[in-house]
Amino acid sequence: MINHLFRLKHRPSGAVKRSDFSFGSEEVRELVDGEVLVQIQYISLDPAMRGWMNASENSYMPPVAIGDVMRAIAAGKVVRSRSGYFAVGDHVTGLLGVQEYAISSGQGLFKVDASLAPLPLFLGTLGMTGMTAYFGLLDVGQPRPGDTVVVSGAAGAVGATVGQIAKIKGARVVGIAGGADKCRYLIDELGFDAAIDYKSESVAAALAQHCPNGVDVFFDNVGGEILDAVLGRLAMHARVVICGAISQYNNLEAAKGPANYLQIMVKRATLRGVMVSDYYPRAKEAITDMAGWIAAGKLKTREDVVPGLDTFPETFQKLFDGSNNGKLVLKVA
Amino acid sequence: MINHLFRLKHRPSGAVKRSDFSFGSEEVRELVDGEVLVQIQYISLDPAMRGWMNASENSYMPPVAIGDVMRAIAAGKVVRSRSGYFAVGDHVTGLLGVQEYAISSGQGLFKVDASLAPLPLFLGTLGMTGMTAYFGLLDVGQPRPGDTVVVSGAAGAVGATVGQIAKIKGARVVGIAGGADKCRYLIDELGFDAAIDYKSESVAAALAQHCPNGVDVFFDNVGGEILDAVLGRLAMHARVVICGAISQYNNLEAAKGPANYLQIMVKRATLRGVMVSDYYPRAKEAITDMAGWIAAGKLKTREDVVPGLDTFPETFQKLFDGSNNGKLVLKVA
Repeated sequence: MINHLFRLKHRPSGAVKRSDFSFGSEEVRELVDGEVLVQIQYISLDPAMRGWMNASENSYMPPVAIGDVMRAIAAGKVVRSRSGYFAVGDHVTGLLGVQEYAISSGQGLFKVDASLAPLPLFLGTLGMTGMTAYFGLLDVGQPRPGDTVVVSGAAGAVGATVGQIAKIKGARVVGIAGGADKCRYLIDELGFDAAIDYKSESVAAALAQHCPNGVDVFFDNVGGEILDAVLGRLAMHARVVICGAISQYNNLEAAKGPANYLQIMVKRATLRGVMVSDYYPRAKEAITDMAGWIAAGKLKTREDVVPGLDTFPETFQKLFDGSNNGKLVLKVA
Repeated sequence: MINHLFRLKHRPSGAVKRSDFSFGSEEVRELVDGEVLVQIQYISLDPAMRGWMNASENSYMPPVAIGDVMRAIAAGKVVRSRSGYFAVGDHVTGLLGVQEYAISSGQGLFKVDASLAPLPLFLGTLGMTGMTAYFGLLDVGQPRPGDTVVVSGAAGAVGATVGQIAKIKGARVVGIAGGADKCRYLIDELGFDAAIDYKSESVAAALAQHCPNGVDVFFDNVGGEILDAVLGRLAMHARVVICGAISQYNNLEAAKGPANYLQIMVKRATLRGVMVSDYYPRAKEAITDMAGWIAAGKLKTREDVVPGLDTFPETFQKLFDGSNNGKLVLKVA
């Protein structure tokens, strides 16, 4: 059995290029006791993967070593098993990599009930993306009914879920996204109260207009100038949830820190991060709530499924040029 | 009766210059009902005053208007009174300004018991400086016995108090200060466990040496590169107390934000500010504890008392060139 796979060849400088990887084919080895072979059907493409490609010492996961299979979360089906827990035919998700077949010891591999929802949803709203939104907003951001919640990267997979959960919890929601189409989508399809197009308007001025009483909760996926603009508009006792900084991940220089961070002091605000792995023990809580909201039509999901394992380097880049529409997933042919 | 006083003439650009103020003399007017006349004896010089000179819209206090008496906290004695609450001879502190005589309506004026401690102490450890240290460390930083607490600006009035309180609470304390003399003072006089001289050594390397298990609590008075270095060394679930950013106050450009702020996420840390005015209702708690520790010899204070109201612009600058030794106080002749 032949596996096609992407290995990391160089650490990318700035945006990822095809030449940063080697794409090859290799024979799949035999399993040893306890292992399973997973045929990968869908691969989740996430901004965090860009960080895993860097030689950073101080990240929450070690970098992908040069020559290793590129790390990614994926979903697939068990096709061989020498495990007492996973059976052939089980659907699973885990850090299976950018490849067609993965051998897993079962550690960090999760069974999913594929009858509940299409498999790509377990890489999105019912997976890490949705849990990041759910726990980041509810546990860290703690919105109260009537609060003004602002989310950046609002048309992205995490942002769209954050905004909809905030609406379900009774908050006013303002999304920041790039382009008129995305902004229309936030208001018309997802029920956001307002949307700010950072590509065509001043974020600071638009925040002043849409958040006259300040921002109670800011869920930030973007960093950079947008973070500074929102810090300049915080309400007293605001909660700032740091989920990511997609504007900074391709920087060749150090990330730009929030120059406005002293507003945290002036406004008695709290800035905390959300790290989804801390919430794995509570995953069921999030999946139950969100599956219920999806079934009730209160929580809309959108997956941008791109076919072709071999398109990985170019498809990944869609996360950074803003051309993806919803949760970006690579479909393995 | 003649009052000598400093009025703000220009908004300073960068470091404060004498020409940014007008120094003059004016006749003291008659009191109206409810007012008191305070003869100022000591004026507190604080980094925050530099911010009050800027035309910022988004600060915790309005800027000092051009032409107004320069704002400052001071201590003195009531010499005339038409108030039912304050009597001639009472010692008081409040926002009385950089001048010899101040008329006050009594709002924001506090009686102090000058028999407890010398008057300058009520501008320092038993005043806002001490309360900032006390509540910032204990309420926001929440050190536990055995924690590693790092404080920047450690030889300054707030920092020295923070470090000593952290020791009293059973923490390991590492101070960051500029120069060998200050570092020796922290260890030999104040009982810090280690001191880092940011002028002669790499802060990041020294933190790695002195904080092998990471930094549980960071109390930051300085901002800039020191903040970034400590963010790179946080322990899991660290608490970062933002008290000030003295390295940034004279910047002509925008402040430099902490480029390492995503470590807040990686380390599940919390970044919060401390604003002493939030704690005024609990002032007695802090003063009782600290006066007790001073009496017991556990908390040492140091005041750098410089005589001469007319030296204000040059004396103020000592806060920024690192030449003050302890709480900087201007003594009115």
